[in-house]
Amino acid sequence: MNKIRIGILGYGNLGRGVQLAIKQNPDMELVGVFTRRDPSSVEVNDPSVGVYLVDQAKDFQDKIDVMILCGGSAKDLPEQTPLFAQLFHTVDSYDTHALIPQFFAKVDEVAKVSKKVSVISVGWDPGLFSLNRLLGEVVLPQGNTYTFWGDGLSQGHSDAIRRLDGVKNGVQYTLPVKEAVERVRSGEQPSLSTREKHTRECFVVLKEDADKDQVEQQITTMPNYFEDYDTTVHFISEDELQKNHSGMPHGGFVIRSGESEANEKQLMEFSLKLESNPNFTSSVLVAYARAAYRLGESGQSGAKTIYDIPVGLLSLKTAEQLRSELL
Amino acid sequence: MNKIRIGILGYGNLGRGVQLAIKQNPDMELVGVFTRRDPSSVEVNDPSVGVYLVDQAKDFQDKIDVMILCGGSAKDLPEQTPLFAQLFHTVDSYDTHALIPQFFAKVDEVAKVSKKVSVISVGWDPGLFSLNRLLGEVVLPQGNTYTFWGDGLSQGHSDAIRRLDGVKNGVQYTLPVKEAVERVRSGEQPSLSTREKHTRECFVVLKEDADKDQVEQQITTMPNYFEDYDTTVHFISEDELQKNHSGMPHGGFVIRSGESEANEKQLMEFSLKLESNPNFTSSVLVAYARAAYRLGESGQSGAKTIYDIPVGLLSLKTAEQLRSELL
Repeated sequence: MNKIRIGILGYGNLGRGVQLAIKQNPDMELVGVFTRRDPSSVEVNDPSVGVYLVDQAKDFQDKIDVMILCGGSAKDLPEQTPLFAQLFHTVDSYDTHALIPQFFAKVDEVAKVSKKVSVISVGWDPGLFSLNRLLGEVVLPQGNTYTFWGDGLSQGHSDAIRRLDGVKNGVQYTLPVKEAVERVRSGEQPSLSTREKHTRECFVVLKEDADKDQVEQQITTMPNYFEDYDTTVHFISEDELQKNHSGMPHGGFVIRSGESEANEKQLMEFSLKLESNPNFTSSVLVAYARAAYRLGESGQSGAKTIYDIPVGLLSLKTAEQLRSELL
Repeated sequence: MNKIRIGILGYGNLGRGVQLAIKQNPDMELVGVFTRRDPSSVEVNDPSVGVYLVDQAKDFQDKIDVMILCGGSAKDLPEQTPLFAQLFHTVDSYDTHALIPQFFAKVDEVAKVSKKVSVISVGWDPGLFSLNRLLGEVVLPQGNTYTFWGDGLSQGHSDAIRRLDGVKNGVQYTLPVKEAVERVRSGEQPSLSTREKHTRECFVVLKEDADKDQVEQQITTMPNYFEDYDTTVHFISEDELQKNHSGMPHGGFVIRSGESEANEKQLMEFSLKLESNPNFTSSVLVAYARAAYRLGESGQSGAKTIYDIPVGLLSLKTAEQLRSELL
C-alpha cells in the first residue's frame, strides 16, 4: 500500500500533535515539517522527518499529498489556506466561526482551480461538535441545541490574562455551570444567558510589585473575555502554576433536547473529556486528511467542511469492513 | 418548493412514528400508507393520507419519491427492501447486524439497476451509534469502544417472555451496569463480559393458575435471551403493567476511550435518552429519506449506509446556511 504522504505547516502544539497522531495511523507517513523559523532551530525528534522553510513547500508538490495547516485562525490560516490549496490537498482547523463563509468562498475558488480538496474548520469545535449540532436538529427538528465547553483551559483567555500589566503568568479555565447542564439534561429546555452557562476560573502569578486587587479588577471587567461571566481569580506561585496547571485539558457537551410530535422527550448528547485539547484536535485533522486524500483521488476538488464528507472516508477500513464490523 | 413525497410501508409503531416525524419536516408530505391488512381497517387519523394495499404501491411510482420501509428485520425487510428498491428510493432500519453485508449486496444490485438510492440500516443502532463507533476509532485509533444500551424496553425480550406458558403479559428492560459505565468513563478501558455490561429486569403478569417459580426459572435460564445476564423478575398485576410499563423508552451510550500518542486519556461519548424508541428511530429514518432523495437527484444510485452519506444532506438548510449558522 502506498502511504498517504503528509506535510505539517507550523510546528506549535497542533503541529506536534499531528506528528504524534500520524504514528497511530499506519497508512500515513510524515514527509516534512514546514516552519517560518530557522529550520535548524526546530527539533522534531525524528531523523526521518525533514524540517524546511515555508517557502520550500512549493518544491514538495510531488512528494506530499496532504498539507495539514497548523497555524492560528487570526493571522495564519486566512493567508496560508488559500496559498497552500494551490499546491496540495489541505486540512485546517480554522475556527473564527463568524468568518467561515468568506474563508470557505476564498479557499473554494482557489482549490477548484488547482483541483485540490481543502477541508476547512475541522477539529472538535468547529468539527465534531458542529456535526452533532446538525444531527441534533435534523433528527429532532422540534427542540433546542445547547453547546457547553469545559472543564478546559482556554488559550485565548489565558493569553488575555498574561498580557495584563502586573501579571507574570496565568491560565484560565472555562467551566460549564453544572446546574445549567443538569437542567438541560432533564429535558427542561431553559433559556440560558452567557453568565448562566459558563463560569471562568483564573490562576494568576503576579509580578513582584503588582497590585493584586487591581489585577483582579482588570480581569473580571475585561470586555468580551470576562465581563459577561462570573469569574474567580486565584493568585498562586509560579511553582504551583507549573506543577498543577501546565496541561491543556478541555472538553464539553453538545446536547439536543427535543420532543417527538407525540410530546415525548428525546435527548441526544455528544461529549468530550480530553486530557489534551491540541492532541485531540490534531487527531481529528489527521483523520480528515485521509478523507481529503480520498476525495481528491475520486476526482473531487474545492473547499469542504465536515458536513460535506461521508464519514466512511475517514476510516482506514474498506466500506465492506465497516458494514460487517462496525455498522 | 416541491415537497419530497413520502410513502410508508407498514403501519406499526415505526410507521406511525414516521407519520408523526413528517409533520416536523415542512419540506415533506406523506402521500400514502401501504399495508398488508385490509386498508379499511387501518385508521391513520388524517383524511389527506390514503391507505392502500402493498400491491398497489407499484401504481405510485410517479407519486412517491421515497418509500420508508417500516417492517421488521426478521421477515419483512429481507423481502421488501429488494422489491421496493425497484420502484422508489427507500430507507429502512434493517438491524440484523450479522446479515447486513448480504442484505447490502442484494439491495445494491437491485437499486443500481433501477437507478434508485436505498439507504439501509438507519435508526440509532444500527445508525447514529454506528456513526459514533466509527468516529471513535478513526479519531482515537488507540483505544476501545464500548456500546451500552438502556435503560430501555427491549421488544424482542418482552416478546420472548410473553410467549412462555403461564405468562399473560410482560415487559423487559435492559439496564447498563452503572459501575461498568463509570469504569469506562474514568478512562480505565476494562474488559467487560456480557454479564458485566448489562442486567435485565422483567415485569411479568401471570395467568391465573401459573406457577411463579417455574415462570421465573424459565425466564432466567432462557438461552441467548437471559442466561448470560443477571436477570430480576417482578410479578405485577395487569393494571400495574398498563399504568407503569406501557411506554417504550430506550437509550444508551457509545463511549470511545482512547489515548493520544503522548499517553493522555481522551474520551468521546455519544448518548441517547429517549422517551419513545420507535418515534426516535422514525425521526432518523425521515432525515435519511431527505438524504436519499437528494442523492438520487444528484444522479447517485445503489445501496447506501450511514457511512456513505455526507451529513449535510440530512438538513433542510443549504450548505451555505449550515456553514454560517451551525459550523
